Amino acid sequence: MITKLYEPLLIVEDSDADFDILKHLMEEMVVQNSIYRCEDGDEVLDFIYQQGEYKNPDLAPRPAVILLDLNLPGTDGREILDRLKQDRQFKEIPIVVFTTSANPQDIQFCYQKGANGYLIKPMTFSELEKTIRAFVDYWLEVNTPPISN
Amino acid sequence: MITKLYEPLLIVEDSDADFDILKHLMEEMVVQNSIYRCEDGDEVLDFIYQQGEYKNPDLAPRPAVILLDLNLPGTDGREILDRLKQDRQFKEIPIVVFTTSANPQDIQFCYQKGANGYLIKPMTFSELEKTIRAFVDYWLEVNTPPISN
Repeated sequence: MITKLYEPLLIVEDSDADFDILKHLMEEMVVQNSIYRCEDGDEVLDFIYQQGEYKNPDLAPRPAVILLDLNLPGTDGREILDRLKQDRQFKEIPIVVFTTSANPQDIQFCYQKGANGYLIKPMTFSELEKTIRAFVDYWLEVNTPPISN
Repeated sequence: MITKLYEPLLIVEDSDADFDILKHLMEEMVVQNSIYRCEDGDEVLDFIYQQGEYKNPDLAPRPAVILLDLNLPGTDGREILDRLKQDRQFKEIPIVVFTTSANPQDIQFCYQKGANGYLIKPMTFSELEKTIRAFVDYWLEVNTPPISN
C-alpha cells in the first residue's frame, strides 16, 4: 500500500518575488506538503547531499519532487539537473523544470538529461495559477513518488 | 514561441474495457489531442519506429506523451520503457506509467529507467476521474512537450 505522507517539495528559485507568489498560490490551494526552498545550485547540492549548512538531515529531507528554475547564480539549473540525473541514488526524484526559457535548445537539453517535465513560467497571473494548479494536482496529488531510501 | 498544436497522445493498454473508459473520460474532458492506441509492446515498437503495419508515417505520428500500461502480452511495458529511454531519438518523449502495480520494485525500476511519472490505476470511478483529470491538465495542457524532430 502506497500512502502519500505529504512528502517534501523542494522549490529552487533565486527570485524572492517568484518564490513568494508560488508559496502564496500553494497555500491558497491548501497544499499540505512541506515546502523547502533553495536559492541557487550550490545550495541544492548541499540540501540533497546533506552537507554544509544542511548537515542535519532534519533540515534537508529527501524531496519527493523538485521544481527547478534553470537560470540561477553560480551552479545553474542545467548543471543540477545533469548531476542529479546521473546519480543513481537521486535520479529517481522527479525534477520539473520551471523557467522563463522557451528556447528549444533548453527544452531539448532538459528532456535529454532526464527532466520529468518542463513548464514555461506564464506571463499572466491567471495562467500562472492554472499552471501551478496543474502541477499541484498532478505531482503532489495523483503521481506516485519514488520510494524513499 | 511554443504552441501546443494538440499533439498526439499514445495510450498503451491491452484491455479494451480500460481503454474505453480512458477514452470516454477524455472525451468528457474535451481533450483535443488525437488519441492513438497500441495494445501490446510489439505494436508500440512498430508505431514508434514506423515499421510493420505503421510504415505509413501518417498512421503513426511521433507522440507528445505516452501513457503506458506495464503488464502487456508479449514485449511488456517495462521493456518498452527501457528501450525507448535508451534511444537518443525517442528518450525525450515523456512516458507516464499507468498500472495496477503498487509494487515498490516496479516503482523503483520505472523511475530508474527514466519514466517521467507513475500513476497507479485507482479502484473507484471517482478516483480514476480525478487521476485522469490531473493527467490531462498537467501533461496535455500546461507541460511543454519535447521539440518534435
